[in-house]
Amino acid sequence: MFGTTLYAPGDVRYEELPEPAILKPTDAIIKLSATCVCGSDLWPYRGANTVTAPMHMGHEYCGVVLEVGGAVKTVKPGQFVVGSFVISDNTCPHCTHGFQSSCEQREFMTGAQAQYARVPLADGTLVATDEMPADDLIPSLLAASDVLGTGWYAADAARVQPGSTVVVVGDGAVGLMGVLAAKQMGAGRIIAMSRHKTRQDLALEYGATDIVAERGEAGIARIKQLTNRIGADSVLECVGTQESMQQALQVARPGSMVGYVGVPHGVTFDGQNLFFTQVGMLGGPAPVRRFLPHLMELVLTRKINPGKVFDLELPLAEVAEGYRAMDERRAIKTLLRV
Amino acid sequence: MFGTTLYAPGDVRYEELPEPAILKPTDAIIKLSATCVCGSDLWPYRGANTVTAPMHMGHEYCGVVLEVGGAVKTVKPGQFVVGSFVISDNTCPHCTHGFQSSCEQREFMTGAQAQYARVPLADGTLVATDEMPADDLIPSLLAASDVLGTGWYAADAARVQPGSTVVVVGDGAVGLMGVLAAKQMGAGRIIAMSRHKTRQDLALEYGATDIVAERGEAGIARIKQLTNRIGADSVLECVGTQESMQQALQVARPGSMVGYVGVPHGVTFDGQNLFFTQVGMLGGPAPVRRFLPHLMELVLTRKINPGKVFDLELPLAEVAEGYRAMDERRAIKTLLRV
Repeated sequence: MFGTTLYAPGDVRYEELPEPAILKPTDAIIKLSATCVCGSDLWPYRGANTVTAPMHMGHEYCGVVLEVGGAVKTVKPGQFVVGSFVISDNTCPHCTHGFQSSCEQREFMTGAQAQYARVPLADGTLVATDEMPADDLIPSLLAASDVLGTGWYAADAARVQPGSTVVVVGDGAVGLMGVLAAKQMGAGRIIAMSRHKTRQDLALEYGATDIVAERGEAGIARIKQLTNRIGADSVLECVGTQESMQQALQVARPGSMVGYVGVPHGVTFDGQNLFFTQVGMLGGPAPVRRFLPHLMELVLTRKINPGKVFDLELPLAEVAEGYRAMDERRAIKTLLRV
Repeated sequence: MFGTTLYAPGDVRYEELPEPAILKPTDAIIKLSATCVCGSDLWPYRGANTVTAPMHMGHEYCGVVLEVGGAVKTVKPGQFVVGSFVISDNTCPHCTHGFQSSCEQREFMTGAQAQYARVPLADGTLVATDEMPADDLIPSLLAASDVLGTGWYAADAARVQPGSTVVVVGDGAVGLMGVLAAKQMGAGRIIAMSRHKTRQDLALEYGATDIVAERGEAGIARIKQLTNRIGADSVLECVGTQESMQQALQVARPGSMVGYVGVPHGVTFDGQNLFFTQVGMLGGPAPVRRFLPHLMELVLTRKINPGKVFDLELPLAEVAEGYRAMDERRAIKTLLRV
């Protein structure tokens, strides 16, 4: 089969790879319907994460089950499934508390930018649909695998409530999904920080009520002005840099929560600053599996259309161009049809 | 009148000072019934905070109103009052959200280790009792002013729920009040970290179900063992050092909350560590004013006895000995009768 390997920063190749096989009785093999390139794939692509060995890329996936191990009970060959980018057993205490992304058996999915993929702990990771979904729903179902679930978690961690004033820092795909999530949770006001016209437009379509194009001190001042100097009830930090995190903390009102889902790179906090700011924080890899049944239901009933976040669609064979387009910010997010 | 001044680390004096007077129409002057020495008073006393000018010490207080400014409406001369250590208007947006400790007009109380004190924003800061309380309730009412309210906030910020497993890091007065608060909130299990027999005993009396005497790695291992390797649902960090904060983060299960109320000294966090630990955090100066009516009610109806945390009672004139006893850990907390 063919799949995607990152050899070095900037060097991503579509190449022949060994077909995946059942290794454990809890595994499933799926034939991918679609996969995509994640913002976090750009960290090693850009050299921000060290690449010490060739990496089989891809952790967002949906497709049809081809084969399952002897212990798999909830999914069967022929079913269409969506899985979380974090592999979980969905039965350990952390899973039971809704934090499947910290499962005692946690693994991070890899190798999904390919024709076929092995999914460990299939019962705890995959969710099957009742029937084969319409083709036009594939992008939105794929989004549930990571980017939508991650934006949703940011809003959940930031405790968005009906009527809340929400600020979303970051206009990448996750930030845009954060806007969608906040809207679904009933936020009264959603302020999206974005400088790019196409992203601003999509944010507005997803429910943003205000766009702030300014950054840094000017951006903070603008949000303070928009919120009568109070700050936001909930802030979604969807970038992961020191600057974006500071932005998030400084537009959050005392007692509010920052839900942060951008993997922090070079971010540190001073304890005493954080203390006197009196802003709460909860972040981490999103427990997508918790939200997956609900999100898939919202997609299948066409209540949400997260798939619009994919503004570039390519055949999997052109995966390298998919990375380039995102790296150069020509695309928000690339969908790869398999 | 006489009051307390810190001139330099270790140099605290009971001396004659000018009597306080109404400076603004929102002020009240109170005659102190009792005051006390706070763990945070020890930071400058020990030289951990720089002392650049003589400091009028004391921010925990209760007593009888002597005089009020022309704009004060809710308290009147002759009433017994308890006030928060943070001055607040109790009407601004942050106060309305329950974070009076971040009030737009916030000031920190000072000069309460004295015979008389001026309390700014009296309406937003003080709560009066219906009648003069029994003398034996004075220590518990005084505790509500800061130490009890702070322990309560730690439990509230850590979102203690009925049945929760709670860890309290720190066996100082605030930590002990955290145990009491967790018990009142219905925690199912309360693990107090303490190495000192008298503090362990008080923790048990306040509702601790387990005592962990080990610290550092051994303490973390012991708590993991006690919680079947899951960690706690809520952790109360009541110290403020890097070591205690790390302890708190490492015994908290993914998705749990650490409520931190020890003013951080030299504490920093690495963003990526915090992200993958997936532990939530909310801290800051306690919004005591939010809890004050409820806490005073619990004391006046004798449902709780936080005053037991004072294990040394001295006349105000011996305030210097009160500091020494706490500095040398001969006392958990010193009450000063005025």
